[in-house]
Amino acid sequence: MSLNPTRTIAELKELRALTSDENGAQRVAWTDTWLKAREWFASKSSDLPVEQHYDSAGNNWVTLPGASERALLIGGHLDSVPNGGWLDGALNVLAGLEVLRRFASEFHGRPPVTIRLVDWADEEGARFGRSLLGSSAFAGTHSIATDRGRADRDGVKMEDALRRCGVEMDRFPEAERERKNAGAYLELHIEQGPVLESLGLPLGVVLGTKGVERHNITFHGQEAHSGSTPMNARRDALAAAAKLALEIRAIAGKHADAVCTMGSLKTFPGIVTAVVGRCEATLDQRDLNAGVLAQMYREAQEASRRFAAEEKCTVEWSRLWNIEPVPFHPALLDLCEQAVRETSGSTHRMPSGPLHDAAEVSRAGIPTAMMFVQSLNGISHNKIEDTRQEHLEMSVTALDKLASKTVNWMVK
Amino acid sequence: MSLNPTRTIAELKELRALTSDENGAQRVAWTDTWLKAREWFASKSSDLPVEQHYDSAGNNWVTLPGASERALLIGGHLDSVPNGGWLDGALNVLAGLEVLRRFASEFHGRPPVTIRLVDWADEEGARFGRSLLGSSAFAGTHSIATDRGRADRDGVKMEDALRRCGVEMDRFPEAERERKNAGAYLELHIEQGPVLESLGLPLGVVLGTKGVERHNITFHGQEAHSGSTPMNARRDALAAAAKLALEIRAIAGKHADAVCTMGSLKTFPGIVTAVVGRCEATLDQRDLNAGVLAQMYREAQEASRRFAAEEKCTVEWSRLWNIEPVPFHPALLDLCEQAVRETSGSTHRMPSGPLHDAAEVSRAGIPTAMMFVQSLNGISHNKIEDTRQEHLEMSVTALDKLASKTVNWMVK
Repeated sequence: MSLNPTRTIAELKELRALTSDENGAQRVAWTDTWLKAREWFASKSSDLPVEQHYDSAGNNWVTLPGASERALLIGGHLDSVPNGGWLDGALNVLAGLEVLRRFASEFHGRPPVTIRLVDWADEEGARFGRSLLGSSAFAGTHSIATDRGRADRDGVKMEDALRRCGVEMDRFPEAERERKNAGAYLELHIEQGPVLESLGLPLGVVLGTKGVERHNITFHGQEAHSGSTPMNARRDALAAAAKLALEIRAIAGKHADAVCTMGSLKTFPGIVTAVVGRCEATLDQRDLNAGVLAQMYREAQEASRRFAAEEKCTVEWSRLWNIEPVPFHPALLDLCEQAVRETSGSTHRMPSGPLHDAAEVSRAGIPTAMMFVQSLNGISHNKIEDTRQEHLEMSVTALDKLASKTVNWMVK
Repeated sequence: MSLNPTRTIAELKELRALTSDENGAQRVAWTDTWLKAREWFASKSSDLPVEQHYDSAGNNWVTLPGASERALLIGGHLDSVPNGGWLDGALNVLAGLEVLRRFASEFHGRPPVTIRLVDWADEEGARFGRSLLGSSAFAGTHSIATDRGRADRDGVKMEDALRRCGVEMDRFPEAERERKNAGAYLELHIEQGPVLESLGLPLGVVLGTKGVERHNITFHGQEAHSGSTPMNARRDALAAAAKLALEIRAIAGKHADAVCTMGSLKTFPGIVTAVVGRCEATLDQRDLNAGVLAQMYREAQEASRRFAAEEKCTVEWSRLWNIEPVPFHPALLDLCEQAVRETSGSTHRMPSGPLHDAAEVSRAGIPTAMMFVQSLNGISHNKIEDTRQEHLEMSVTALDKLASKTVNWMVK
């Protein structure tokens, strides 16, 4: 049985019909719809000569034993954000399934190395605000103590929601056992950005995932009456924040692929008749180069203090989260480039701004590569998320080529 | 019985003890605490030779008949914002009461003209978002049809809350009858701003209330992933709004007393990982000169369109509210200046940024003047609102002088 990329698309549509509503995909991890998606997926691999089990963090492992115990891992995630798209995460899993089928049908069902497909649990962190949950348990970078206290919007505790799905948080560390014999990890993903589309390219090679500095920044000024307070007597916290909102673009602009985003800004008291006394902003900075990231963080801090002083305000920072850049494996990047070029004729190397499970796997020391397929209009996490059918088919083919090349690299 | 400004301060403290809690004054109109304040006030005038009644909009009129039916009106408001100060509105009423007492004790209880003290209903609009309610009914500028649909935070309808206090909204127009024979209107108020304090002056003459243009401004860009969207591919609605937040200061800065305020800014989706797709801001612009106000409004609109274009966004405006500037009466301004100078030795003419019931009275064609007394730190609508005791006493004295001068002006 040869690779059938059309089947992948048919299966993606089947999954969409099963787990979406008029607002998009609803496969939020640890919900009934997500469990339904996993049940459906199990039915798809039931006729293959594979072993299947869930690890202690809820990751689903489908293993095709090979001549060697050394394993090639291919991963994705069936969970989605609420009102999500049909491709984010699911393409990875179903393309991986197609590659697994191809391996199972060749080599008399016994490929040179073991092939393992993994559906990571809770990549999105949509319900409890903790993304890359399953892959971080695998990588040993989990944070059980911090995460245990999390609850969803309805007050349901994370611990209880996971237990309902058969996962005990205390047992997360046991998921690290799955790293045994892992020789390489591959992941296909939609780009979720506009770069490949703007270059007219179907596929791209991902250099790594950008490091992230994520902070809350609060400017303190003085609430004052909008009618009675002369302009020169104001301590306007919004003015200081507005200067920073514009300055971060200059800070990012010095570096080719760097991004800085002020995604949220809140004003207090936030009424039409009062000068803003307090302004809370968020800042998200990303780059693949750790030095660049550190420089941007430092420059944003300096700028915020300068603007606070100019506006007779004060400023305080508090880190929400950060992660170092994760460059992928050079040899696998080359193989990925070959696979992309053979499939689509041209290639492009680019960092990934969004985080992916691949970053956690790479942090665990497993040689890792990722491939992007073009997103239409750069939109994801939305029901209008889409990719051209021919590009989806090419992505399955390219992942399959990359898997073969990686197996050859592993046995060399 | 001569004027006793110390008594005014004692009464203000008595009212504070009766109607405040640890967060400040709680005399929100149409609440039990407000009714308690009014009941207390009624007890203060019960031994005077006056007629008292509530008009159809809930304004409380205390009338000392004079030799002429021509009436001098002195006004204030006992209602406060939630967690408000002890002086805003209440100083006006209790200083007016002291002036009324003085008139009642002179002229054998029969002054040359009729003296009327009015406690306006719901100046603040704190509960239903409609300020100057009672005085607008008096002036005939009310908006019953629009206001009828209002409800408070708890869903209580404005109409029902007013009915509970004996006021039928349909009968608002009958309050216009109180304008009969009105020859002048005087109002003392705390400045609620920092100007007099910065000049070292106890008292000021109010030129009029500034006109106001109040708008919602919405910038529409494109929500996008903060990690995957290159800086040059963004349509960042916050960037456009930030430019406007800074530009309005230059727009106001061209004119001596003009102010422009962006008091609220909201980001959507407003999450740390997304470029802002939509940004809603408010703009409040004020000046005493209608031409200046119109120019500032036009310049802000033009700037917003320019910034939207620069950021590949669109912008839309919707007017929340506006009012024309209300200059006070030139002859009464001169009398006010005399009264202030005789009391405190120096004077300063200034526009009022905040609106006051005096603006509604003036719009009804009644010669009007207002006097400001210094606010400490320019703060009001807050429990720390305060004014030096000697300044409060001077303000009662100056209001009394102004009342005498105005009576003389009326009978001339």
